[in-house]
Amino acid sequence: MEDTLTSHKTTLVTTLNRYRLLIEYDGAAFQGWQTQPNGPTVQQEVEKALGIALRTPTSIVGSGRTDSGVHARGQVAHFDAKKLDEAKLQKSLNGLLPLEIAVLALERTSNEFHARFDAIRRTYHYHVSTAPRALDASMRVVVRPAPDFELMNEAATKLVGMHNFNSFCIARSETKNRVCRVDRAEWIAEPRDGDWRFEIVADRYLHGMVRAIVGTLLQIGKGKRTSTAISDILSKQDRRVAGPAAPPNGLVLHRVDYPES
Amino acid sequence: MEDTLTSHKTTLVTTLNRYRLLIEYDGAAFQGWQTQPNGPTVQQEVEKALGIALRTPTSIVGSGRTDSGVHARGQVAHFDAKKLDEAKLQKSLNGLLPLEIAVLALERTSNEFHARFDAIRRTYHYHVSTAPRALDASMRVVVRPAPDFELMNEAATKLVGMHNFNSFCIARSETKNRVCRVDRAEWIAEPRDGDWRFEIVADRYLHGMVRAIVGTLLQIGKGKRTSTAISDILSKQDRRVAGPAAPPNGLVLHRVDYPES
Repeated sequence: MEDTLTSHKTTLVTTLNRYRLLIEYDGAAFQGWQTQPNGPTVQQEVEKALGIALRTPTSIVGSGRTDSGVHARGQVAHFDAKKLDEAKLQKSLNGLLPLEIAVLALERTSNEFHARFDAIRRTYHYHVSTAPRALDASMRVVVRPAPDFELMNEAATKLVGMHNFNSFCIARSETKNRVCRVDRAEWIAEPRDGDWRFEIVADRYLHGMVRAIVGTLLQIGKGKRTSTAISDILSKQDRRVAGPAAPPNGLVLHRVDYPES
Repeated sequence: MEDTLTSHKTTLVTTLNRYRLLIEYDGAAFQGWQTQPNGPTVQQEVEKALGIALRTPTSIVGSGRTDSGVHARGQVAHFDAKKLDEAKLQKSLNGLLPLEIAVLALERTSNEFHARFDAIRRTYHYHVSTAPRALDASMRVVVRPAPDFELMNEAATKLVGMHNFNSFCIARSETKNRVCRVDRAEWIAEPRDGDWRFEIVADRYLHGMVRAIVGTLLQIGKGKRTSTAISDILSKQDRRVAGPAAPPNGLVLHRVDYPES
């Protein structure tokens, strides 16, 4: 009897496939990515839609959290389900999900793939404009008068490399390891005059890290700190010495890289 | 006595200068440009802000109307006022206006300048995506499956030139002259994979014209009409033979050209 049960369980497990989602969302409508009791989150909405489409409760694992109000163009998540028609499920999900969430891709992946543990690099963009803006106000922060982008880029080079980013991590964070490897950190002029974005690529981020970095760089760009301030702040390992967090609506999780991609 | 009055009046008139505004707005929040009794319009909001900033009722003249839900990146308007500090007024207006309206530029112009009558060319963009989208859902219409853009561009060339656009004008329009000169009409791939925009440049537009053109081109791109349909539709001069109006939220008044600009 016990043997039969075990065998039955094994069959159930092996008939599950792993699927990978590429998700875009407008963070203004959600209390961040991660499921939590107060208000809707992106994870909850996607799990609700999956539960309806697959007719069974289905949980997803994301590449990482994004804070309340932060957007994503390339969030990655995985879930397990019985064999299914990927194109049909993607269409169903986009029909079921609120307009502020879109499934850009859905494909079968290796059963060993893990959206969080396998991610090797994450790219964030922070969008600002030095001119008044009305049309993409929900994802661009107006910074006037214009900061000195050359000075900010000079300062940003100090972020590149392996550093303890404790000074750029919110105090209440429970993450023990505060060392991140930043591969790139640069302000880039966008096609429309006055629009700029900050691009940062790192292996991992601490809670509130990108917004604290952008807030500090903007202080440097406005002449409130010198461009050498970054090294001092990093060495102090104290959140209170860095600048204020920039508003969440300028921030977008742009892409997550995996070894095979 | 009469002489004195006349002279007084003349003085009043000559102390007024004409100012030119460049305005961006998110049309989703407004019942179009033009002042009207139902709900807020962009013109009303700008006039209200000007009235507060200048402490006197001030009316503006726009380059033309935009429909409810249609956006603008380059609407032009003029108003008359006593000598003022342009930079200061621009800042006040952006502080007073709702977030969905931004004054991009404010400058003194010739007292003969007229935002509507002097405009020689107007450019509209219509944004679509062939992929699901969540982040700029408010100004991009998802069209799936992807239409044939090559076929639509072949058809769009038939719009270029002087034509009676009656077939692309809403039936209730009171405009008598239905002839417009289209200088350019083309679909262009945007940087992000799956994003496209339709660019149209013309001397003038009829009510609902760009949305009717885009709706008709999309029918051609989906194979519901042949690419030669445009010439037939133009010659019939009947709105009922063209396609349905595309949704307003994809449409943006991109720029207005004047002889001196």
